[in-house]
Amino acid sequence: MTQSTYSELNRIFHPSKVAIIGASPVADIATLALMKTKIKDNVFFVNPKYNEIFGRKCYASVLDIEEPIDYAIIGVNANLVPKVVGECIQRGIGAAHIFTSGFSETGLPEGHALEKELKDVAAGKIRIIGPNCFGIYCPRSGLAIVPESSETEGNVGVIAQSGSVAESFSYFGKTKNLHFSKVVSYGNATDLDCPDFLEYMADDPQTKVIALYIEGSRNGKRLFEALKYAACRKPVVAVKGGLTDNGNRVARSHTGQLTGTPELWKTLFRQCGAIQVSNHDELVNTVAAFSHSPLPQGNRVSLVSNSGGFSVIQTDLCAAEGMAVPPFTEKTLDRLGRLVPRAGTSIGNPLDAWPIFYKVFQKEGSLGDIVKVVAEDDNIDSLVFMFDQFRYIRRARKHEAIDHMNLVTEMMLEGSRYCRDILGKPVLLSVSLDPFLEDDEDRRGNLMLKNAFEQNGFPVYPASDITIRALARLYKYAAQTGKAL
Amino acid sequence: MTQSTYSELNRIFHPSKVAIIGASPVADIATLALMKTKIKDNVFFVNPKYNEIFGRKCYASVLDIEEPIDYAIIGVNANLVPKVVGECIQRGIGAAHIFTSGFSETGLPEGHALEKELKDVAAGKIRIIGPNCFGIYCPRSGLAIVPESSETEGNVGVIAQSGSVAESFSYFGKTKNLHFSKVVSYGNATDLDCPDFLEYMADDPQTKVIALYIEGSRNGKRLFEALKYAACRKPVVAVKGGLTDNGNRVARSHTGQLTGTPELWKTLFRQCGAIQVSNHDELVNTVAAFSHSPLPQGNRVSLVSNSGGFSVIQTDLCAAEGMAVPPFTEKTLDRLGRLVPRAGTSIGNPLDAWPIFYKVFQKEGSLGDIVKVVAEDDNIDSLVFMFDQFRYIRRARKHEAIDHMNLVTEMMLEGSRYCRDILGKPVLLSVSLDPFLEDDEDRRGNLMLKNAFEQNGFPVYPASDITIRALARLYKYAAQTGKAL
Repeated sequence: MTQSTYSELNRIFHPSKVAIIGASPVADIATLALMKTKIKDNVFFVNPKYNEIFGRKCYASVLDIEEPIDYAIIGVNANLVPKVVGECIQRGIGAAHIFTSGFSETGLPEGHALEKELKDVAAGKIRIIGPNCFGIYCPRSGLAIVPESSETEGNVGVIAQSGSVAESFSYFGKTKNLHFSKVVSYGNATDLDCPDFLEYMADDPQTKVIALYIEGSRNGKRLFEALKYAACRKPVVAVKGGLTDNGNRVARSHTGQLTGTPELWKTLFRQCGAIQVSNHDELVNTVAAFSHSPLPQGNRVSLVSNSGGFSVIQTDLCAAEGMAVPPFTEKTLDRLGRLVPRAGTSIGNPLDAWPIFYKVFQKEGSLGDIVKVVAEDDNIDSLVFMFDQFRYIRRARKHEAIDHMNLVTEMMLEGSRYCRDILGKPVLLSVSLDPFLEDDEDRRGNLMLKNAFEQNGFPVYPASDITIRALARLYKYAAQTGKAL
Repeated sequence: MTQSTYSELNRIFHPSKVAIIGASPVADIATLALMKTKIKDNVFFVNPKYNEIFGRKCYASVLDIEEPIDYAIIGVNANLVPKVVGECIQRGIGAAHIFTSGFSETGLPEGHALEKELKDVAAGKIRIIGPNCFGIYCPRSGLAIVPESSETEGNVGVIAQSGSVAESFSYFGKTKNLHFSKVVSYGNATDLDCPDFLEYMADDPQTKVIALYIEGSRNGKRLFEALKYAACRKPVVAVKGGLTDNGNRVARSHTGQLTGTPELWKTLFRQCGAIQVSNHDELVNTVAAFSHSPLPQGNRVSLVSNSGGFSVIQTDLCAAEGMAVPPFTEKTLDRLGRLVPRAGTSIGNPLDAWPIFYKVFQKEGSLGDIVKVVAEDDNIDSLVFMFDQFRYIRRARKHEAIDHMNLVTEMMLEGSRYCRDILGKPVLLSVSLDPFLEDDEDRRGNLMLKNAFEQNGFPVYPASDITIRALARLYKYAAQTGKAL
């Protein structure tokens, strides 16, 4: 995009002073969110009903604020929005995010009329995000969507037509080890639309990977160009919401968009080089892999597992996702034969070798060494741990279980860092943890491993199929873009 | 199966007195497991190395025990197994479970020779489960696989070639709200094999649904007959491990079975009427649905959601699984219009109506009433809640959040019981909970709802795609067996 458009959008994502018009002291998520970030001293409240909110002055109108405002968040009643936007223009405010719903997405004539009125008022005078959306989360500037939004900056950009998809990213960022450059929910897109944000994030040096949730578009050609522009520059992982007749019907009533056929969207994403996935969880999991991992140079995986039955299932999963689990080389088998105890184990790929997690800790032949040997195999392009082991460790080690888990974690990390940082091969970790597990010690033991791997920048997932699918997306992207040999 | 074979197997699952041969006071999971159940006073330890284990007499040989033993668990070194089995026969023991590995599954000539020797010793004189397996978990008799095995009886039967698949069922039963009639891991199947257990559980009145994990078979025709016999009588949900070349290679080294092509297995399951699923998680989730839910009479679902974007994705998921999310009848829309607040909601199917979870609690028009109205719609055969709401409730209700959650739960349950118990329509619940979530209050709020629904016998899943897939399996089974209209 042009330098001037880039700068315009950059200013929107990094405002100096923000007015919240329609601010309220009661359960106002937008206000609470901003009050927790570095921007809090540059937020101004506007609402004629209050003189003060949270002990700070509240203005009757945006026109009354003395200081120069460059961004407005508007949460007033829908009927008042055009008037308030008019005041923002009068005040010289460059951009406004309209949270309020009740416009074209209702499908009602009065909703369409109101959105037309808003569009006419704003045209060429102020940039609009929304209406009917959650707006921007940008850790660097302090804009936030939910009170739980982290202030840590990251490399993931999110563009979501749906407010709750953006909210979910912002809320679960920490849990899913995702840190963001920018998140934007753009709703009805009466002015700024998906292509604007795609081009901006494509050019944004802080953004390494773009997550896109889209329900429809008013200008297919423009979307095509922007998607292609972005996908040439960095991975764009996309979900199209409303791919079926019923899904389309629901999408129309959600953001009022024209939606197109599933085939059209599939072709669009393929031709542009975007990676289409089928739901929100896949979007999150795929983006996490691109955010954290190098790309694999081939599709050959080594699985380090702790169960014969599960390693059979996981090998099948790999094949279903286009990944191979080839036998190790003779050299590797020979080296492993000297490191891994025979009883109850299978020295091959998958390495079904549960005793290594709680028995082998002599100085030579540690778990770390075993991982290094596997990583060095010439038949192997990446390494996936399938860990479901803490309860076994607890049975065997009883009260020493947590200490032992620390040792296991350290050794797994030692081998994994060697694999990724020296050999350049991806390492992904599956820590199988049931979301409903109420065995707190088991949770804690597993979360220790998970957190340690995340802190070292490895992608971690809660189930083996998710992990394998994420790795397969990395490989497919690497192969298609020529970034793998 | 014949009455006498049924009785023979029934005696194996319900022994009176059990010898653990090769018992040890150190980290012996089998021993620890049995010591926690009602059978503990009828367990006898055998190991020439000890005079006493856990303060109880330990015998040098099974021949030394005075009392009549009817079941032996053998965990001695592989080379000693044939001799020990000979002693069991001499002692008149009817059945033995051989935990020990190191037989045909190794692929080595000496392993095959040892298994042949075992087979010859046992033939016609004692029934064998294994070797290379975890044996039986039967809450009614007190046999257990892991120390965490619950003593609560249920209606799920599990037949698993893999020990860790059986272990996983036994360990996670509580978390996944699965309670078992019988679980058996049969490993190399040198004597008792999958078809024996299939026929037994088919005739077992306590078993309502059978979960099967199989890697291969030595007698395809016998398996076909037994599968057909079982699937005619109750739902059989099956995973074939080793469907791909690499998976097959791994399966062969795991339990030493001949494995066949994926097409052959697919045909086998279809012709027998068994429900084939692709991995362990799907097995667990599908079995939970059959264990707890009535069958839907059609494929038309109502989704009660709390997000526009997610309800679009969920509607697409339904279509992908063969389920429909049709519009409500005019009558329902009219009734809902008087109960649900308009702002920010979409009164249709999916019911994207987040405010109902924290605003509408007047006596008439409660959340319970809304659920009943949806359930009564003539276009709807089943109801799925997509709950991802606690963090919103917390933001809005602050310190009253948990109390409020109790109220929400009560009203959701009131409507759900009406739907299932009066109208006969299934209700499934998705409580979206990230396994790695470390926000303890959020976890607690969500687990309250999950536990309340489980205690009332509804299937609960941690993600929407899992929930929809489980419901789709119920519908497909109902349609194929003529149990749906």
